[in-house]
Amino acid sequence: MPYVGVVGRGGSDVPAAVLSTAEAVGRAVAEAGAVLVCGGRDGVMEAACRGARAGGGLTVGILPGLDRGEANPFVDVVLPTGLGEARNALVARAADVLIAVDGGYGTLSEIALALAAGTPVVGVATWELRRADEGARADAGIVPVGDPVEAVRVALRLAGHRRADQDDEGL
Amino acid sequence: MPYVGVVGRGGSDVPAAVLSTAEAVGRAVAEAGAVLVCGGRDGVMEAACRGARAGGGLTVGILPGLDRGEANPFVDVVLPTGLGEARNALVARAADVLIAVDGGYGTLSEIALALAAGTPVVGVATWELRRADEGARADAGIVPVGDPVEAVRVALRLAGHRRADQDDEGL
Amino acid sequence: MPYVGVVGRGGSDVPAAVLSTAEAVGRAVAEAGAVLVCGGRDGVMEAACRGARAGGGLTVGILPGLDRGEANPFVDVVLPTGLGEARNALVARAADVLIAVDGGYGTLSEIALALAAGTPVVGVATWELRRADEGARADAGIVPVGDPVEAVRVALRLAGHRRADQDDEGL
Amino acid sequence: MPYVGVVGRGGSDVPAAVLSTAEAVGRAVAEAGAVLVCGGRDGVMEAACRGARAGGGLTVGILPGLDRGEANPFVDVVLPTGLGEARNALVARAADVLIAVDGGYGTLSEIALALAAGTPVVGVATWELRRADEGARADAGIVPVGDPVEAVRVALRLAGHRRADQDDEGL
Repeated sequence: MPYVGVVGRGGSDVPAAVLSTAEAVGRAVAEAGAVLVCGGRDGVMEAACRGARAGGGLTVGILPGLDRGEANPFVDVVLPTGLGEARNALVARAADVLIAVDGGYGTLSEIALALAAGTPVVGVATWELRRADEGARADAGIVPVGDPVEAVRVALRLAGHRRADQDDEGL
Repeated sequence: MPYVGVVGRGGSDVPAAVLSTAEAVGRAVAEAGAVLVCGGRDGVMEAACRGARAGGGLTVGILPGLDRGEANPFVDVVLPTGLGEARNALVARAADVLIAVDGGYGTLSEIALALAAGTPVVGVATWELRRADEGARADAGIVPVGDPVEAVRVALRLAGHRRADQDDEGL
Repeated sequence: MPYVGVVGRGGSDVPAAVLSTAEAVGRAVAEAGAVLVCGGRDGVMEAACRGARAGGGLTVGILPGLDRGEANPFVDVVLPTGLGEARNALVARAADVLIAVDGGYGTLSEIALALAAGTPVVGVATWELRRADEGARADAGIVPVGDPVEAVRVALRLAGHRRADQDDEGL
Repeated sequence: MPYVGVVGRGGSDVPAAVLSTAEAVGRAVAEAGAVLVCGGRDGVMEAACRGARAGGGLTVGILPGLDRGEANPFVDVVLPTGLGEARNALVARAADVLIAVDGGYGTLSEIALALAAGTPVVGVATWELRRADEGARADAGIVPVGDPVEAVRVALRLAGHRRADQDDEGL
């Protein structure tokens, strides 16, 4: 059973179209039988959890603060960490693959920590990365996809490949 | 739904009587409808998770390493952290109350971190703490109990009190 | 006395021109009387520390592993963390301002965590960030500079502004 | 150059005799040429840093919060972590040996994390630990000493032994 991290902005000013995408991603994660892991708060995280619950899935929220009450109402397993944004490393580590939906700097840190660890990242209208030393070319770390259903399909395929690679390495 | 942390030694040389106690604690946690949180590994953690699963409960394992395969087979939600024993702080923070069964130094750190945060700790045949400045008197932080069923009953009562206190404080 | 974080790739295959830039940055940090904070390892971190030592400055290395011997020989204060790449959050938090020199995904995570916390970031030939929702425009988070001396001059000015802002807010 | 962690209670109500002991420990650490590592705050930590500065030594403070201003005025290298009491694991990991002076639950967590990692711990009028399974016998993890000068002498000897052991193991 794969763990899919869904990352994106918290807060109350996330555009409705982004929330709608996140909800559809969450629903597709649940319908695929995967566990949804996220930062547990509002905004994109809440929308994704709402979708996952509608899809009958299990949701895990790794909170920045110490108060369980910070979690959005659609988180099933609530883990207060008290680490602040350092908990982003835990979201990245708890996931077999990340799906980034839009996102701010905190989201970018989760993307970067995942990529640094070799965890695949799929992006829906999220950050675009360019390395200075490669001129105008985009970095290929984030796999861009066009819609929520494709995001989950590609994410699960990449998560499966990664597990197979690890098995080959004897991990 | 309260989260009960069950802490104790990992490893393959934990005495059978300790494992039996841990399993009964886990079962009672599940039968009370609480979530069991632990360090996810073998020894006391595995016994507690086995008991919880037999009791129909949900188990969460917060692993020290990065490899999901470290988890014992009775963990439902597996969270690799890569933090080593620093993940003990997360076990303490994820729990509304801790039950310590026997235990080594790692367990002692979880007890201490919980007490430092005001999280109640119930102990079954675990560490006994004395402060030098209080002579021969034992520190009253760990609430000693005699058996697994009493441990869970006392733990849930203390977790309930703590929540009520927090509500009074407007937390 | 400001703390300047210098972040970039570790490893033995960092191009000589990048190492040369990092060394000049480290030297300028030291000559400005600032403390250099970094991840403590080889590559860009070692070059920056070598420069800082040549400039008579103090260097702090926040290591990913548990072994003090991982540090490069130019680190004065060696802090093993055992957190792996999660220590990147600590490098970002220990710095009043970051200077990124080139860099891989780990560096990108430090940049993102700093920006998420409101810590200014100066970049010398490093990542270029674009948000999907802003079309082709680059994100303005990383302040691009052309050379090591300018990097440190701009970094210290931004660190000073940030402190002044915090004082105004009563932090 | 060994790193000696000095751990004990923060706060303004630490007894004068405890502060006096901590200051003498800090001074002896500095006079032995070791780096003093601590949690960076007031109480025992401040007294130890004051002693170390009087002895001409270097002090490192690993703070629980994000604000550098939390540090006591005798900390030379200030590292805000934002991890709360989870930073206790970092104090334990940054030290080659710990000296505990008196202490509350936070101190106990640092002692336990150090012992779990094989880092020696010396105690001056600090916690006394008993394992339930060993009846009335005290656990031998904390090496008790009578005064500050002996504490530092024993601590440095133990730190030296530990390093020699690690060298033998090829660490």
